[in-house]
Amino acid sequence: MRLLEERICRDGVVGAGNVLKVDSFLNHQMDVPFLSQLGEEIYKRFKDEGITKVLTIEASGIGIACLTAQYFGVPVLFAKKTPTNNIFGDVYTAEVYSYTHERTYTIYVSKRFLNPDDKVLIVDDFLAKGSALVALLKLVESAGASVAGAGIAIEKAYQEGGELVRSMGLRVESLARIASMTEEGIRFLED
Amino acid sequence: MRLLEERICRDGVVGAGNVLKVDSFLNHQMDVPFLSQLGEEIYKRFKDEGITKVLTIEASGIGIACLTAQYFGVPVLFAKKTPTNNIFGDVYTAEVYSYTHERTYTIYVSKRFLNPDDKVLIVDDFLAKGSALVALLKLVESAGASVAGAGIAIEKAYQEGGELVRSMGLRVESLARIASMTEEGIRFLED
Repeated sequence: MRLLEERICRDGVVGAGNVLKVDSFLNHQMDVPFLSQLGEEIYKRFKDEGITKVLTIEASGIGIACLTAQYFGVPVLFAKKTPTNNIFGDVYTAEVYSYTHERTYTIYVSKRFLNPDDKVLIVDDFLAKGSALVALLKLVESAGASVAGAGIAIEKAYQEGGELVRSMGLRVESLARIASMTEEGIRFLED
Repeated sequence: MRLLEERICRDGVVGAGNVLKVDSFLNHQMDVPFLSQLGEEIYKRFKDEGITKVLTIEASGIGIACLTAQYFGVPVLFAKKTPTNNIFGDVYTAEVYSYTHERTYTIYVSKRFLNPDDKVLIVDDFLAKGSALVALLKLVESAGASVAGAGIAIEKAYQEGGELVRSMGLRVESLARIASMTEEGIRFLED
């Protein structure tokens, strides 16, 4: 999606440790009208799939998930990283390995909100090594629900996550797919 | 706001420890079309205030903040509870005491995204003892920005947070103000 690629080139900063800083519009400050345009594009790609629920993971996935779900007119369910007082009753859990923090953590969703008749669209801001996405897939599978695919804002296509989940049969639509990035510039894969 | 009061009565559950469970539509599963209606109501109440930015706190404030900001056409900035890799450079910080977890934690926003010419609307899902709201006010004050007020979905009006922040001169618009709640029923304050 040209619009997102241009925004990444304009406002993204490539930092040490292969980090792409997009905190000015995507995952700290969120440019809501812009994210809504991304949400509309994700909607266009999945609108005929009978989506009943959008699933994401806190915290930076929640904004784009809500702005996508608006087009579908369906609820968002966000997996939590701590067993908080906002979740009650039985939960589905899955393990996520964080490469950033070098530790494994558990994510939770209430069993009440994922059902076998749900057709789930997973939405997240980033796809890199795929650990969070695989965990979200496990939550959907645990509930016996079906998954229509994943709508991702930015995929680091030079990392293994995209290939991993596509090889599992998941349809992944990433709005910008980064082929390589250095401090000199960012190169994208064609759609 | 009658719509929200009715929803709380229909789907909210009063649990042990004075907890109001609204995880089916507000803070775990999020009924996006419904939250968008709440956002529109907050917009109506603050639309003439020249809002330039919506400020909230992760994670459960992000959904309603984004769906409110859409009406204003402004960005959302969410304070983070951990010094994550998504924040770069200098930060403003404030302390929040969590009564639920009985500990104090620090919240962070990047200095780059709060400026003296910002007119900030704080949006959050709950107001109870006011600790998070006071901390968000401190972040705004640290930046030399001005605050137009706070748009809150549910205020537990029998707790001290609302009075505390109103006595500090803050305009608080809560869409549902709970006067009392027991397992038998929930009573609201009139607007």
